[in-house]
Amino acid sequence: MITVKEIAKMCDVSPSTVSNILNGKPNVSEKTRQRVWDAVKETGYQPNYYAANMRKQSTRTIAILAEDLGQFSTPPILEAAMASCEEHEYRTVIMNLRLYDKWRDTWYNDEKKLQSVLTPALNEIRSIKVDGLLYIAGHGRPLKCLPDDFSLPTVIAYATSENNRFPSIILDDEKGGYDMIKYLTSMGHRRIGIIAGAADNMHAKERLLGCQRALFEESIPYNPEWTVYGDWERQSGYECAQKLAQHNLTAIWCMNDLMAGGAYDYAREKGIVVGKDLSIAGYDDRQVAQYLYPGLTTNELPLKEVGIACANKLIGMLQDEDEEISKEPIRVDGKMIIRGSVAKLN
Amino acid sequence: MITVKEIAKMCDVSPSTVSNILNGKPNVSEKTRQRVWDAVKETGYQPNYYAANMRKQSTRTIAILAEDLGQFSTPPILEAAMASCEEHEYRTVIMNLRLYDKWRDTWYNDEKKLQSVLTPALNEIRSIKVDGLLYIAGHGRPLKCLPDDFSLPTVIAYATSENNRFPSIILDDEKGGYDMIKYLTSMGHRRIGIIAGAADNMHAKERLLGCQRALFEESIPYNPEWTVYGDWERQSGYECAQKLAQHNLTAIWCMNDLMAGGAYDYAREKGIVVGKDLSIAGYDDRQVAQYLYPGLTTNELPLKEVGIACANKLIGMLQDEDEEISKEPIRVDGKMIIRGSVAKLN
Repeated sequence: MITVKEIAKMCDVSPSTVSNILNGKPNVSEKTRQRVWDAVKETGYQPNYYAANMRKQSTRTIAILAEDLGQFSTPPILEAAMASCEEHEYRTVIMNLRLYDKWRDTWYNDEKKLQSVLTPALNEIRSIKVDGLLYIAGHGRPLKCLPDDFSLPTVIAYATSENNRFPSIILDDEKGGYDMIKYLTSMGHRRIGIIAGAADNMHAKERLLGCQRALFEESIPYNPEWTVYGDWERQSGYECAQKLAQHNLTAIWCMNDLMAGGAYDYAREKGIVVGKDLSIAGYDDRQVAQYLYPGLTTNELPLKEVGIACANKLIGMLQDEDEEISKEPIRVDGKMIIRGSVAKLN
Repeated sequence: MITVKEIAKMCDVSPSTVSNILNGKPNVSEKTRQRVWDAVKETGYQPNYYAANMRKQSTRTIAILAEDLGQFSTPPILEAAMASCEEHEYRTVIMNLRLYDKWRDTWYNDEKKLQSVLTPALNEIRSIKVDGLLYIAGHGRPLKCLPDDFSLPTVIAYATSENNRFPSIILDDEKGGYDMIKYLTSMGHRRIGIIAGAADNMHAKERLLGCQRALFEESIPYNPEWTVYGDWERQSGYECAQKLAQHNLTAIWCMNDLMAGGAYDYAREKGIVVGKDLSIAGYDDRQVAQYLYPGLTTNELPLKEVGIACANKLIGMLQDEDEEISKEPIRVDGKMIIRGSVAKLN
C-alpha cells in the first residue's frame, strides 16, 4: 500500500507537507500542491480521512460493543483490547447486547432482532461522543448489521466485515484446520475422522478447507464419510463419535473441545483408551481441555491476539493517516497445544 | 423495617401525603405535618433519599463497574444484572478495571493500585451522568475502596460493603459449606478432609464456618489436621490431597473445582478410584466439573441470582422510598449439584 511517506519521497517534500496538502491547509506553493496531487492520483493513494478528522476533536474514548459478554470468546478479546487502548491512553466504555442471553442462537440471521438492540446502542455510542468503536462479534459470520453510513471509525473483531470501511480481525480458521491435520499426520495418522461444527458455520467451513489442504499435501484422499457434523455441544460429540466408529479410524479431530469431551465419553463407554487405542484432538483450548483425561491436544484460539490487533488497528485509524483499511479480514493464527490425547503410530 | 405505608396508616393519611411531607412539599396542614414527623421520629423511620432525589432528573442509565471482566464469576453476574436493568427500562454502560490483568492478585490489599484506576473510572461515571452504580467485585472481601462521600446510589456485588450507604449482595458461603458437609454426612461419610482456599480468604473462612456448624450438628468433632489450605489452583489440590493421604479419609471436599481436579490427579496417580475408593467434592460448578471423570459433585455459585438481586436492589433504591438499605450484606444461596464423585458408604 502507498503511504504518505512514499508520496512525500516521490515528490521530494516532507510527509507533513503531504498531509497539509491532503487536508487543504494553506502555505504551500501551487507547484508543490499540484505535484503532490498528481502523485496521489497516479499511485491511487487512499488517505485515511478518519485520522485527519479525529485529531481535531478527540475525546480519547473508545466504545467497545460486545454482542454477548457471556460468550467464552468475548472477555479475553475485550480485556486484551482494553489493555492496548490504555497503553495508548484511550479510555473505554463497554456496551453489551446480550444477544445469546436474549435469543440463544436464533439471532444470527434475524436482522430484526439484532437491530432492535443494536440501533439504540449505536445511538447511545454516538451521544457519548467517542473517537471510535470496537465491535466484538459473538458469532463468526459476514457481519452486515452496522449501517452503511455509520461514520465512526470502527473495527470488527471475530466476524468479517461486509463494508470496506470497517476492517475486521478474525481467527485464522483455515490455518488452524491445516495445522491440526498436519500435526495428526506427523504422528502417523492417515485414517482421520472429523467431527465438524454446524455445516453452515463460518469457522467449521474454514477449518475444513484447511484440513483439505493438509490432506492434499499429505496425499491422503479426502473421504467425506469420515466427516460428520455436530452442533458444538458435548452430546453431539458423543453421537458423532458413535457414527464414526464403523470406519476404523485411528484419530478423530473435533472442531471444539466440548465435542471432544463427548467423544471421550463414547470411548470410555466402549472401553477404548483415548491417547492409546484412539487419538482425539479438540479445538479452542478451553479450560476443560486440561481437565479431560488424558489432557486434550487442541488448538488455542488467539483471542488475546485478536483483541490486541483490533485495538491497534482502530488506534492506527484514529492516529495515522497511513493506516491501511483493507477489504480483506486480517487473520490471526492459533497455536497447537500438545497434551496426551494423540498417540504416535508406528 | 418501617415503611412509608405504615407511617401513613399510623397517621391516617395517604402514603403520598407522607412522601410530600418528607420531601418538604407545601399544601399540607401544619397539624398533619406535625403528626407525620412525630411518627417518623417515634418509629425511627429512615427515608430513602436517593429515590426522592433521583426521580427528579433520571437519565435511566446505570453504570456497571467490574473489577475484572476476565474473572469467571463476573460475566454471569453482569449479564443477569443487565437483564434486570433492561426489564425495568434502564440502559447500562459498563466499565472494567482489569485489576487481575494488571496486577494478578497483588491488588486486594493495595489501595494505591486500586485507587489509581478506580478514581478516574468514578470520575468518568460521574461525568456521563448515570442514576446509579453497580459495583461488581472480582475478589470477595470487605470493600473499602469507594469514597465515603460517594453520592451516587450504589450496590456492591460479590464483596461486603464497609459503608452503610452501599448495600451488598454476596454468596452465602457459610450455607454452602454447611450444605456440602450435610450432603457428605448424609452419604455416610464421617472422615471428611477439607482442601480449603487461601487461609485469609473471605470465602474460605465462611465456608469453613458452615462446615463446622454441620459437623457440630452431626456430632463429628472437627479435626484441624484434616483441613489443609491450598491456593485455589489445580496443583495445590494435588499437593493437599497428598498431605491428607495419611489420615484414612473417605471423602475430601475441595473449596473449588480446580483444586478438586488436582485431587483427582493425585487419586489417579495412586490408582485410587474417585467415586468408589475415595469421594471428592468441589465448589463453584465451573464447566470443568462436568468434564472430570466421574463428574464432580459440587455447589453451584448463584452468580445469576447475585446479579439479579443487586440490580433489583439498586432499582429499588432509585424508585422506592421504602427500599431497605441494610448494613448487613444480603446472602444468596448456592445449589448442590450431584454427580458421580461421591460414593454412598454402608
